[in-house]
Amino acid sequence: MLKVPEHQVAGRQAIDGKLGPLIDNSGHFYKPLQDDDERGTRELTFYHSFSSNSRIPHHIHRFFPVFHGTQLLKASDGSGLRPYLVLQDITSDHLNPSILDIKIGSRTWYLEASNDYIQNCFHRDKTTTTVSLGFRICGLQIYNESGFWKPGRKLVRNFTADDVRSVLRKFVSSNVGPEPDCCFADSVYGGCDGILERLLELKTWFEDQTMYHFRSCSVLLLFDKESFLRGKTPFAEVKLIDFAHVVDGNGVIDHNFLGGLCSFIKFVSQVLADSKGSTMEDKI
Amino acid sequence: MLKVPEHQVAGRQAIDGKLGPLIDNSGHFYKPLQDDDERGTRELTFYHSFSSNSRIPHHIHRFFPVFHGTQLLKASDGSGLRPYLVLQDITSDHLNPSILDIKIGSRTWYLEASNDYIQNCFHRDKTTTTVSLGFRICGLQIYNESGFWKPGRKLVRNFTADDVRSVLRKFVSSNVGPEPDCCFADSVYGGCDGILERLLELKTWFEDQTMYHFRSCSVLLLFDKESFLRGKTPFAEVKLIDFAHVVDGNGVIDHNFLGGLCSFIKFVSQVLADSKGSTMEDKI
Repeated sequence: MLKVPEHQVAGRQAIDGKLGPLIDNSGHFYKPLQDDDERGTRELTFYHSFSSNSRIPHHIHRFFPVFHGTQLLKASDGSGLRPYLVLQDITSDHLNPSILDIKIGSRTWYLEASNDYIQNCFHRDKTTTTVSLGFRICGLQIYNESGFWKPGRKLVRNFTADDVRSVLRKFVSSNVGPEPDCCFADSVYGGCDGILERLLELKTWFEDQTMYHFRSCSVLLLFDKESFLRGKTPFAEVKLIDFAHVVDGNGVIDHNFLGGLCSFIKFVSQVLADSKGSTMEDKI
Repeated sequence: MLKVPEHQVAGRQAIDGKLGPLIDNSGHFYKPLQDDDERGTRELTFYHSFSSNSRIPHHIHRFFPVFHGTQLLKASDGSGLRPYLVLQDITSDHLNPSILDIKIGSRTWYLEASNDYIQNCFHRDKTTTTVSLGFRICGLQIYNESGFWKPGRKLVRNFTADDVRSVLRKFVSSNVGPEPDCCFADSVYGGCDGILERLLELKTWFEDQTMYHFRSCSVLLLFDKESFLRGKTPFAEVKLIDFAHVVDGNGVIDHNFLGGLCSFIKFVSQVLADSKGSTMEDKI
Protein backbone atom coordinates (compact mmCIF):
# COMPACT_ATOMS: atom_id res chain seq x y z
CA MET A 1 0.00 0.00 0.00
CA LEU A 2 1.45 3.33 -1.11
CA LYS A 3 0.67 6.54 0.74
CA VAL A 4 1.63 10.19 0.94
CA PRO A 5 4.70 10.72 3.18
CA GLU A 6 3.63 11.96 6.58
CA HIS A 7 6.89 13.76 7.31
CA GLN A 8 7.55 15.59 4.05
CA VAL A 9 8.54 19.17 4.90
CA ALA A 10 9.41 20.63 1.47
CA GLY A 11 8.92 20.02 -2.24
CA ARG A 12 5.87 18.98 -4.26
CA GLN A 13 3.29 16.86 -2.44
CA ALA A 14 1.15 14.04 -3.83
CA ILE A 15 -2.11 15.69 -2.76
CA ASP A 16 -5.05 17.33 -4.58
CA GLY A 17 -4.38 15.29 -7.70
CA LYS A 18 -0.79 16.52 -7.98
CA LEU A 19 2.34 14.53 -8.66
CA GLY A 20 4.53 13.89 -5.65
CA PRO A 21 6.49 11.27 -3.74
CA LEU A 22 4.94 8.21 -2.05
CA ILE A 23 6.07 5.77 0.62
CA ASP A 24 5.27 2.17 1.50
CA ASN A 25 5.36 0.30 4.82
CA SER A 26 8.72 -1.34 4.06
CA GLY A 27 10.87 1.78 4.33
CA HIS A 28 10.84 2.83 0.68
CA PHE A 29 10.42 6.35 -0.65
CA TYR A 30 9.14 6.64 -4.24
CA LYS A 31 10.06 9.84 -6.05
CA PRO A 32 8.44 10.49 -9.46
CA LEU A 33 10.87 11.07 -12.32
CA GLN A 34 9.80 14.39 -13.78
CA ASP A 35 9.62 14.14 -17.54
CA ASP A 36 8.98 17.80 -18.33
CA ASP A 37 12.67 18.68 -18.21
CA GLU A 38 16.02 17.07 -17.53
CA ARG A 39 15.63 16.95 -13.75
CA GLY A 40 14.43 13.37 -13.54
CA THR A 41 17.12 12.11 -15.89
CA ARG A 42 19.77 14.07 -14.02
CA GLU A 43 18.74 12.70 -10.62
CA LEU A 44 18.60 9.12 -11.92
CA THR A 45 22.01 9.55 -13.59
CA PHE A 46 23.41 10.84 -10.32
CA TYR A 47 22.10 7.90 -8.27
CA HIS A 48 23.46 5.41 -10.82
CA SER A 49 26.85 7.13 -10.92
CA PHE A 50 27.13 7.65 -7.17
CA SER A 51 26.01 4.19 -6.08
CA SER A 52 28.57 2.51 -8.34
CA ASN A 53 31.40 5.00 -7.79
CA SER A 54 34.30 3.24 -6.07
CA ARG A 55 35.97 6.57 -5.24
CA ILE A 56 33.24 7.44 -2.70
CA PRO A 57 34.49 6.61 0.80
CA HIS A 58 32.30 4.23 2.80
CA HIS A 59 31.47 6.79 5.51
CA ILE A 60 30.23 9.23 2.84
CA HIS A 61 27.69 6.76 1.44
CA ARG A 62 25.92 6.95 4.82
CA PHE A 63 24.92 10.56 4.08
CA PHE A 64 22.90 9.53 1.05
CA PRO A 65 19.58 7.66 0.88
CA VAL A 66 20.04 4.08 -0.32
CA PHE A 67 19.08 3.74 -4.00
CA HIS A 68 16.96 0.73 -5.00
CA GLY A 69 16.56 1.43 -8.73
CA THR A 70 13.39 2.54 -10.50
CA GLN A 71 9.84 1.19 -10.67
CA LEU A 72 6.71 1.94 -12.72
CA LEU A 73 3.85 3.11 -10.49
CA LYS A 74 0.38 4.58 -10.90
CA ALA A 75 1.03 8.31 -10.57
CA SER A 76 -0.75 10.38 -7.91
CA ASP A 77 -1.87 12.96 -10.51
CA GLY A 78 -3.91 10.37 -12.43
CA SER A 79 -1.55 10.40 -15.43
CA GLY A 80 -1.22 6.62 -15.35
CA LEU A 81 1.93 4.56 -14.99
CA ARG A 82 5.20 6.46 -14.75
CA PRO A 83 8.73 5.75 -13.55
CA TYR A 84 9.67 6.44 -9.92
CA LEU A 85 13.04 6.41 -8.19
CA VAL A 86 12.94 3.87 -5.35
CA LEU A 87 14.90 5.26 -2.41
CA GLN A 88 15.33 4.63 1.29
CA ASP A 89 12.61 6.32 3.37
CA ILE A 90 14.81 8.18 5.82
CA THR A 91 11.99 8.83 8.28
CA SER A 92 10.59 5.27 8.40
CA ASP A 93 12.47 4.26 11.57
CA HIS A 94 11.26 7.28 13.48
CA LEU A 95 8.02 7.97 15.30
CA ASN A 96 7.85 11.76 15.58
CA PRO A 97 10.93 13.10 13.82
CA SER A 98 11.81 16.78 13.99
CA ILE A 99 13.17 17.67 10.54
CA LEU A 100 15.01 20.62 9.00
CA ASP A 101 15.45 20.82 5.22
CA ILE A 102 18.32 23.22 4.40
CA LYS A 103 19.20 24.03 0.80
CA ILE A 104 22.95 24.54 0.78
CA GLY A 105 24.89 27.07 -1.32
CA SER A 106 24.75 30.81 -2.00
CA ARG A 107 23.75 30.06 -5.60
CA THR A 108 21.16 27.51 -6.72
CA TRP A 109 21.64 28.05 -10.47
CA TYR A 110 24.41 26.70 -12.67
CA LEU A 111 25.99 27.79 -15.93
CA GLU A 112 24.56 24.82 -17.85
CA ALA A 113 20.93 25.82 -17.02
CA SER A 114 18.55 27.84 -19.23
CA ASN A 115 18.49 31.62 -18.92
CA ASP A 116 14.95 31.56 -17.46
CA TYR A 117 15.99 29.06 -14.82
CA ILE A 118 19.06 31.16 -13.93
CA GLN A 119 16.98 34.35 -13.63
CA ASN A 120 14.34 32.64 -11.42
CA CYS A 121 16.98 31.18 -9.13
CA PHE A 122 18.94 34.44 -9.06
CA HIS A 123 15.83 36.29 -7.86
CA ARG A 124 14.89 33.66 -5.27
CA ASP A 125 18.49 33.48 -3.99
CA LYS A 126 18.61 37.25 -3.45
CA THR A 127 15.24 37.42 -1.68
CA THR A 128 15.86 34.53 0.72
CA THR A 129 18.89 33.90 2.97
CA THR A 130 20.63 31.97 0.18
CA VAL A 131 22.91 34.83 -0.89
CA SER A 132 23.41 36.35 2.55
CA LEU A 133 23.92 33.17 4.60
CA GLY A 134 24.97 30.69 1.92
CA PHE A 135 21.95 28.47 2.66
CA ARG A 136 18.20 28.68 3.23
CA ILE A 137 15.72 26.66 5.22
CA CYS A 138 13.19 25.18 2.77
CA GLY A 139 10.93 23.45 5.23
CA LEU A 140 10.75 22.09 8.75
CA GLN A 141 8.71 20.35 11.38
CA ILE A 142 9.57 20.37 15.07
CA TYR A 143 7.89 17.97 17.46
CA ASN A 144 6.76 19.10 20.90
CA GLU A 145 4.12 18.11 23.46
CA SER A 146 1.27 19.60 21.47
CA GLY A 147 2.28 17.96 18.19
CA PHE A 148 4.30 19.31 15.26
CA TRP A 149 5.19 22.94 14.69
CA LYS A 150 5.30 23.18 10.89
CA PRO A 151 5.34 26.78 9.63
CA GLY A 152 3.86 27.44 6.18
CA ARG A 153 5.90 27.78 3.02
CA LYS A 154 5.51 31.56 2.81
CA LEU A 155 6.67 32.08 6.39
CA VAL A 156 9.72 29.87 5.82
CA ARG A 157 10.59 31.69 2.62
CA ASN A 158 10.75 34.99 4.51
CA PHE A 159 13.08 33.70 7.23
CA THR A 160 15.84 36.12 8.26
CA ALA A 161 19.21 35.20 9.80
CA ASP A 162 17.66 35.63 13.25
CA ASP A 163 14.75 33.34 12.32
CA VAL A 164 17.28 30.71 11.24
CA ARG A 165 19.09 30.99 14.59
CA SER A 166 15.76 30.70 16.39
CA VAL A 167 14.75 27.58 14.41
CA LEU A 168 18.12 25.95 15.14
CA ARG A 169 17.49 26.55 18.86
CA LYS A 170 13.89 25.29 18.75
CA PHE A 171 15.01 22.15 16.91
CA VAL A 172 16.89 21.03 20.04
CA SER A 173 14.47 22.35 22.67
CA SER A 174 11.61 20.83 24.62
CA ASN A 175 9.54 23.92 23.78
CA VAL A 176 9.04 25.95 20.60
CA GLY A 177 7.95 29.18 22.28
CA PRO A 178 9.84 32.49 22.19
CA GLU A 179 12.46 31.23 24.69
CA PRO A 180 13.59 27.77 23.60
CA ASP A 181 15.52 25.93 26.35
CA CYS A 182 18.05 24.20 24.02
CA CYS A 183 18.06 21.27 26.47
CA PHE A 184 18.97 18.75 23.73
CA ALA A 185 21.64 20.94 22.08
CA ASP A 186 24.57 19.16 23.66
CA SER A 187 23.31 15.67 22.73
CA VAL A 188 22.00 16.47 19.26
CA TYR A 189 24.52 19.04 17.94
CA GLY A 190 27.51 18.16 20.17
CA GLY A 191 29.45 14.99 20.96
CA CYS A 192 31.16 12.49 18.67
CA ASP A 193 27.81 11.18 17.35
CA GLY A 194 26.26 14.63 17.06
CA ILE A 195 25.16 16.55 14.00
CA LEU A 196 28.13 18.95 14.11
CA GLU A 197 30.60 16.08 13.88
CA ARG A 198 28.68 14.66 10.90
CA LEU A 199 28.65 18.04 9.15
CA LEU A 200 32.42 18.36 9.66
CA GLU A 201 32.92 14.90 8.09
CA LEU A 202 30.91 16.09 5.12
CA LYS A 203 32.95 19.31 4.95
CA THR A 204 36.22 17.35 4.82
CA TRP A 205 34.91 15.36 1.86
CA PHE A 206 33.75 18.52 0.05
CA GLU A 207 37.21 20.10 0.49
CA ASP A 208 38.58 17.28 -1.61
CA GLN A 209 36.00 15.81 -3.99
CA THR A 210 35.90 17.26 -7.52
CA MET A 211 33.46 14.77 -9.09
CA TYR A 212 30.04 16.30 -8.44
CA HIS A 213 28.65 19.80 -7.97
CA PHE A 214 25.46 19.72 -5.90
CA ARG A 215 23.22 22.63 -6.96
CA SER A 216 19.92 23.08 -5.09
CA CYS A 217 20.70 20.08 -2.94
CA SER A 218 19.47 19.91 0.66
CA VAL A 219 20.97 18.77 3.91
CA LEU A 220 18.24 17.12 5.98
CA LEU A 221 18.66 17.16 9.76
CA LEU A 222 16.54 14.67 11.62
CA PHE A 223 16.13 14.42 15.37
CA ASP A 224 13.81 11.96 17.09
CA LYS A 225 13.15 12.85 20.73
CA GLU A 226 11.37 9.52 21.23
CA SER A 227 14.44 7.53 20.16
CA PHE A 228 16.69 9.78 22.25
CA LEU A 229 14.62 9.37 25.42
CA ARG A 230 14.50 5.58 24.92
CA GLY A 231 18.27 5.44 24.37
CA LYS A 232 17.92 4.26 20.75
CA THR A 233 20.52 5.18 18.14
CA PRO A 234 20.71 6.98 15.85
CA PHE A 235 18.44 9.59 17.33
CA ALA A 236 19.91 12.32 15.12
CA GLU A 237 20.86 12.03 11.46
CA VAL A 238 22.28 14.10 8.62
CA LYS A 239 21.29 13.18 5.06
CA LEU A 240 21.71 14.77 1.67
CA ILE A 241 18.65 14.77 -0.61
CA ASP A 242 17.51 16.18 -4.00
CA PHE A 243 19.99 15.59 -6.78
CA ALA A 244 18.01 16.82 -9.78
CA HIS A 245 20.59 19.57 -10.30
CA VAL A 246 23.85 17.74 -9.74
CA VAL A 247 26.37 18.55 -12.47
CA ASP A 248 29.85 17.30 -13.32
CA GLY A 249 32.55 18.77 -11.09
CA ASN A 250 35.13 18.78 -13.91
CA GLY A 251 38.03 18.51 -11.51
CA VAL A 252 36.99 21.55 -9.42
CA ILE A 253 35.71 21.31 -5.83
CA ASP A 254 32.08 22.30 -5.18
CA HIS A 255 33.07 25.64 -3.62
CA ASN A 256 29.45 26.80 -3.64
CA PHE A 257 28.23 23.88 -1.51
CA LEU A 258 31.36 23.95 0.66
CA GLY A 259 31.05 27.67 1.44
CA GLY A 260 27.37 27.32 2.36
CA LEU A 261 28.05 24.22 4.43
CA CYS A 262 30.79 26.07 6.38
CA SER A 263 28.37 28.92 7.05
CA PHE A 264 25.71 26.49 8.27
CA ILE A 265 28.29 24.74 10.47
CA LYS A 266 29.12 28.11 12.03
CA PHE A 267 25.42 28.72 12.82
CA VAL A 268 25.08 25.29 14.48
CA SER A 269 28.36 25.83 16.41
CA GLN A 270 27.11 29.17 17.69
CA VAL A 271 23.82 27.66 18.94
CA LEU A 272 25.81 24.89 20.65
CA ALA A 273 28.27 27.37 22.22
CA ASP A 274 25.45 29.68 23.37
CA SER A 275 23.57 26.76 24.93
CA LYS A 276 26.71 25.74 26.84
CA GLY A 277 27.18 29.33 27.94
CA SER A 278 23.62 29.57 29.24
CA THR A 279 23.89 26.19 31.02
CA MET A 280 27.03 27.47 32.73
CA GLU A 281 25.19 30.63 33.74
CA ASP A 282 22.31 28.56 35.14
CA LYS A 283 24.79 26.65 37.30
CA ILE A 284 26.58 29.73 38.63
CA MET B 1 59.91 61.31 -5.76
CA LEU B 2 56.67 59.55 -6.66
CA LYS B 3 56.48 57.21 -9.62
CA VAL B 4 54.19 54.72 -11.32
CA PRO B 5 54.53 51.23 -9.74
CA GLU B 6 56.71 49.03 -11.89
CA HIS B 7 55.11 45.78 -10.75
CA GLN B 8 51.40 46.62 -10.91
CA VAL B 9 49.64 43.69 -12.65
CA ALA B 10 45.94 44.67 -12.39
CA GLY B 11 43.69 47.67 -11.75
CA ARG B 12 43.83 51.24 -13.03
CA GLN B 13 47.29 52.60 -13.85
CA ALA B 14 48.59 56.13 -13.40
CA ILE B 15 49.56 56.52 -17.06
CA ASP B 16 48.26 58.57 -20.01
CA GLY B 17 46.87 61.22 -17.67
CA LYS B 18 44.73 58.72 -15.77
CA LEU B 19 44.31 58.36 -12.05
CA GLY B 20 46.17 55.45 -10.49
CA PRO B 21 48.45 54.41 -7.63
CA LEU B 22 51.98 55.74 -7.09
CA ILE B 23 54.99 54.56 -5.10
CA ASP B 24 58.01 56.23 -3.50
CA ASN B 25 61.51 54.97 -2.75
CA SER B 26 60.76 54.34 0.94
CA GLY B 27 58.43 51.37 0.47
CA HIS B 28 55.12 53.25 0.36
CA PHE B 29 52.24 52.60 -2.03
CA TYR B 30 49.84 55.53 -2.57
CA LYS B 31 46.34 54.57 -3.68
CA PRO B 32 43.98 57.37 -4.75
CA LEU B 33 40.69 57.54 -2.84
CA GLN B 34 38.06 57.46 -5.56
CA ASP B 35 35.46 60.13 -4.91
CA ASP B 36 32.99 59.18 -7.64
CA ASP B 37 31.31 56.52 -5.50
CA GLU B 38 31.62 54.96 -2.06
CA ARG B 39 34.62 52.78 -2.89
CA GLY B 40 37.25 55.12 -1.50
CA THR B 41 35.33 55.74 1.70
CA ARG B 42 34.70 52.02 2.12
CA GLU B 43 38.36 51.10 1.67
CA LEU B 44 39.50 53.80 4.10
CA THR B 45 36.85 52.72 6.62
CA PHE B 46 38.07 49.14 6.30
CA TYR B 47 41.73 50.03 6.90
CA HIS B 48 40.81 52.14 9.94
CA SER B 49 38.58 49.39 11.35
CA PHE B 50 40.99 46.54 10.62
CA SER B 51 44.18 48.20 11.86
CA SER B 52 42.59 49.03 15.21
CA ASN B 53 40.60 45.79 15.61
CA SER B 54 41.91 43.88 18.63
CA ARG B 55 40.06 40.72 17.57
CA ILE B 56 42.36 40.22 14.56
CA PRO B 57 45.03 37.64 15.45
CA HIS B 58 48.64 38.80 15.06
CA HIS B 59 49.44 36.25 12.34
CA ILE B 60 46.47 37.47 10.27
CA HIS B 61 47.73 41.08 10.21
CA ARG B 62 50.72 39.81 8.23
CA PHE B 63 48.43 39.06 5.27
CA PHE B 64 47.46 42.72 4.92
CA PRO B 65 49.53 45.67 3.70
CA VAL B 66 50.54 47.97 6.56
CA PHE B 67 48.32 51.08 6.65
CA HIS B 68 50.02 54.46 7.20
CA GLY B 69 46.96 56.74 7.05
CA THR B 70 46.09 59.16 4.25
CA GLN B 71 47.94 61.98 2.50
CA LEU B 72 47.07 64.73 0.03
CA LEU B 73 49.02 64.35 -3.22
CA LYS B 74 49.04 65.88 -6.68
CA ALA B 75 46.91 63.44 -8.69
CA SER B 76 48.30 61.72 -11.77
CA ASP B 77 45.27 62.78 -13.86
CA GLY B 78 46.02 66.47 -13.38
CA SER B 79 42.97 67.05 -11.16
CA GLY B 80 45.12 68.70 -8.48
CA LEU B 81 45.49 67.68 -4.85
CA ARG B 82 43.46 64.69 -3.70
CA PRO B 83 43.56 62.22 -0.80
CA TYR B 84 45.56 58.98 -1.15
CA LEU B 85 45.73 55.94 1.11
CA VAL B 86 49.32 55.41 2.22
CA LEU B 87 50.05 51.69 2.30
CA GLN B 88 53.02 49.36 2.42
CA ASP B 89 54.51 48.75 -1.03
CA ILE B 90 54.53 44.94 -1.01
CA THR B 91 56.94 44.66 -3.92
CA SER B 92 59.54 47.16 -2.66
CA ASP B 93 61.85 44.52 -1.14
CA HIS B 94 61.97 42.47 -4.30
CA LEU B 95 64.03 42.81 -7.45
CA ASN B 96 62.10 40.85 -10.06
CA PRO B 97 58.96 39.54 -8.36
CA SER B 98 56.67 37.09 -10.12
CA ILE B 99 53.15 38.12 -9.13
CA LEU B 100 49.67 36.57 -9.43
CA ASP B 101 46.60 38.68 -8.60
CA ILE B 102 43.64 36.37 -7.90
CA LYS B 103 40.18 37.78 -7.19
CA ILE B 104 38.59 35.37 -4.72
CA GLY B 105 34.93 34.34 -4.58
CA SER B 106 32.31 33.02 -7.00
CA ARG B 107 30.41 36.31 -6.68
CA THR B 108 31.93 39.80 -6.78
CA TRP B 109 28.65 41.68 -6.15
CA TYR B 110 26.83 42.18 -2.86
CA LEU B 111 23.25 42.84 -1.87
CA GLU B 112 24.02 46.39 -0.70
CA ALA B 113 25.29 47.45 -4.17
CA SER B 114 23.31 49.24 -6.90
CA ASN B 115 21.38 47.20 -9.45
CA ASP B 116 23.70 48.31 -12.28
CA TYR B 117 26.74 47.24 -10.31
CA ILE B 118 25.15 43.85 -9.54
CA GLN B 119 24.26 43.26 -13.20
CA ASN B 120 27.77 44.20 -14.40
CA CYS B 121 29.43 41.92 -11.87
CA PHE B 122 26.94 39.12 -12.54
CA HIS B 123 27.82 39.22 -16.24
CA ARG B 124 31.58 39.40 -15.66
CA ASP B 125 31.42 36.59 -13.07
CA LYS B 126 29.60 34.27 -15.50
CA THR B 127 31.96 34.98 -18.41
CA THR B 128 35.20 34.51 -16.47
CA THR B 129 36.22 31.63 -14.19
CA THR B 130 34.67 33.40 -11.17
CA VAL B 131 31.44 31.35 -11.16
CA SER B 132 32.96 28.07 -12.32
CA LEU B 133 36.15 28.04 -10.22
CA GLY B 134 35.22 30.41 -7.39
CA PHE B 135 38.07 32.78 -8.33
CA ARG B 136 39.66 34.45 -11.34
CA ILE B 137 43.13 35.60 -12.19
CA CYS B 138 43.04 39.38 -12.72
CA GLY B 139 46.62 39.95 -13.69
CA LEU B 140 50.09 38.45 -13.51
CA GLN B 141 53.75 38.79 -14.32
CA ILE B 142 56.18 35.90 -14.30
CA TYR B 143 59.92 36.50 -14.38
CA ASN B 144 62.19 34.36 -16.51
CA GLU B 145 65.56 34.69 -18.23
CA SER B 146 64.20 36.88 -20.99
CA GLY B 147 62.34 39.24 -18.67
CA PHE B 148 58.72 39.32 -17.55
CA TRP B 149 55.89 37.37 -19.14
CA LYS B 150 52.90 39.67 -18.61
CA PRO B 151 49.88 38.65 -20.72
CA GLY B 152 47.43 41.39 -21.70
CA ARG B 153 44.19 42.12 -19.87
CA LYS B 154 41.99 40.57 -22.58
CA LEU B 155 43.95 37.34 -22.64
CA VAL B 156 43.78 37.05 -18.84
CA ARG B 157 40.04 37.74 -18.85
CA ASN B 158 39.49 34.77 -21.17
CA PHE B 159 41.48 32.31 -19.05
CA THR B 160 39.91 28.84 -18.72
CA ALA B 161 40.44 26.35 -15.88
CA ASP B 162 43.29 24.80 -17.86
CA ASP B 163 44.91 28.22 -18.39
CA VAL B 164 44.75 28.77 -14.63
CA ARG B 165 46.49 25.43 -14.01
CA SER B 166 49.11 26.31 -16.58
CA VAL B 167 49.77 29.74 -14.99
CA LEU B 168 50.13 28.14 -11.55
CA ARG B 169 52.75 25.81 -13.00
CA LYS B 170 54.62 28.57 -14.85
CA PHE B 171 54.69 30.68 -11.69
CA VAL B 172 57.01 28.12 -10.08
CA SER B 173 59.03 27.15 -13.16
CA SER B 174 62.33 28.28 -14.62
CA ASN B 175 60.62 28.48 -18.02
CA VAL B 176 57.25 29.82 -19.18
CA GLY B 177 57.01 27.74 -22.37
CA PRO B 178 54.40 25.07 -23.08
CA GLU B 179 56.08 22.56 -20.72
CA PRO B 180 56.89 24.35 -17.47
CA ASP B 181 59.34 22.38 -15.29
CA CYS B 182 57.77 23.29 -11.91
CA CYS B 183 61.25 23.16 -10.40
CA PHE B 184 60.36 25.66 -7.64
CA ALA B 185 56.96 24.10 -6.80
CA ASP B 186 58.16 22.28 -3.74
CA SER B 187 59.91 25.33 -2.25
CA VAL B 188 57.31 27.95 -3.18
CA TYR B 189 54.00 26.08 -2.76
CA GLY B 190 55.12 23.36 -0.32
CA GLY B 191 56.88 23.28 3.03
CA CYS B 192 56.05 25.04 6.28
CA ASP B 193 56.97 28.46 4.88
CA GLY B 194 55.30 27.85 1.54
CA ILE B 195 52.29 29.51 -0.05
CA LEU B 196 49.97 26.54 0.59
CA GLU B 197 50.62 26.69 4.33
CA ARG B 198 49.88 30.44 4.32
CA LEU B 199 46.64 29.90 2.38
CA LEU B 200 45.56 27.23 4.88
CA GLU B 201 46.20 29.69 7.75
CA LEU B 202 43.99 32.19 5.97
CA LYS B 203 41.32 29.52 5.43
CA THR B 204 41.25 28.69 9.14
CA TRP B 205 40.61 32.35 9.95
CA PHE B 206 37.86 32.63 7.34
CA GLU B 207 36.10 29.57 8.80
CA ASP B 208 35.69 31.54 11.97
CA GLN B 209 35.64 35.31 11.40
CA THR B 210 32.21 36.92 10.96
CA MET B 211 33.30 40.58 11.02
CA TYR B 212 34.07 41.37 7.38
CA HIS B 213 32.89 40.13 4.00
CA PHE B 214 35.55 40.66 1.35
CA ARG B 215 33.87 41.17 -2.03
CA SER B 216 36.09 41.66 -5.06
CA CYS B 217 39.17 41.30 -2.90
CA SER B 218 42.36 39.76 -4.29
CA VAL B 219 44.92 37.37 -2.98
CA LEU B 220 48.34 38.41 -4.26
CA LEU B 221 50.98 35.70 -4.59
CA LEU B 222 54.53 36.96 -4.85
CA PHE B 223 57.60 34.88 -5.60
CA ASP B 224 61.07 36.33 -6.02
CA LYS B 225 63.49 33.90 -7.66
CA GLU B 226 66.37 36.25 -6.93
CA SER B 227 65.69 36.17 -3.17
CA PHE B 228 65.19 32.41 -3.31
CA LEU B 229 68.50 31.75 -5.10
CA ARG B 230 70.33 34.04 -2.65
CA GLY B 231 68.72 32.27 0.33
CA LYS B 232 66.84 35.40 1.42
CA THR B 233 63.48 35.13 3.19
CA PRO B 234 60.69 35.63 2.56
CA PHE B 235 61.05 34.65 -1.07
CA ALA B 236 57.34 33.91 -1.39
CA GLU B 237 54.46 35.90 0.10
CA VAL B 238 50.66 35.88 0.27
CA LYS B 239 48.90 39.22 0.71
CA LEU B 240 45.30 40.39 0.53
CA ILE B 241 44.64 43.61 -1.37
CA ASP B 242 41.71 45.76 -2.59
CA PHE B 243 39.15 46.45 0.10
CA ALA B 244 36.87 48.93 -1.68
CA HIS B 245 34.03 46.39 -1.46
CA VAL B 246 34.38 45.07 2.07
CA VAL B 247 31.03 44.99 3.85
CA ASP B 248 29.94 44.15 7.39
CA GLY B 249 29.82 40.40 8.07
CA ASN B 250 26.84 40.76 10.43
CA GLY B 251 27.78 37.65 12.38
CA VAL B 252 27.95 35.39 9.29
CA ILE B 253 31.20 33.93 7.92
CA ASP B 254 32.36 35.09 4.48
CA HIS B 255 31.25 31.85 2.79
CA ASN B 256 31.81 33.37 -0.64
CA PHE B 257 35.48 34.16 0.00
CA LEU B 258 35.99 30.92 1.92
CA GLY B 259 34.53 28.73 -0.84
CA GLY B 260 36.66 30.42 -3.49
CA LEU B 261 39.76 30.22 -1.31
CA CYS B 262 39.23 26.47 -0.80
CA SER B 263 38.89 26.00 -4.54
CA PHE B 264 42.10 27.95 -5.15
CA ILE B 265 43.88 25.92 -2.46
CA LYS B 266 42.83 22.74 -4.28
CA PHE B 267 44.31 24.07 -7.54
CA VAL B 268 47.62 24.89 -5.84
CA SER B 269 47.64 21.48 -4.07
CA GLN B 270 47.11 19.71 -7.38
CA VAL B 271 50.03 21.53 -9.04
CA LEU B 272 52.21 20.66 -6.05
CA ALA B 273 51.12 16.99 -6.07
CA ASP B 274 51.61 16.72 -9.86
CA SER B 275 55.08 18.24 -9.62
CA LYS B 276 56.03 15.71 -6.93
CA GLY B 277 54.61 12.92 -9.10
CA SER B 278 56.66 14.01 -12.11
CA THR B 279 59.82 14.41 -10.01
CA MET B 280 59.34 10.86 -8.76
CA GLU B 281 58.92 9.68 -12.35
CA ASP B 282 62.11 11.49 -13.38
CA LYS B 283 64.00 9.64 -10.67
CA ILE B 284 62.68 6.19 -11.56
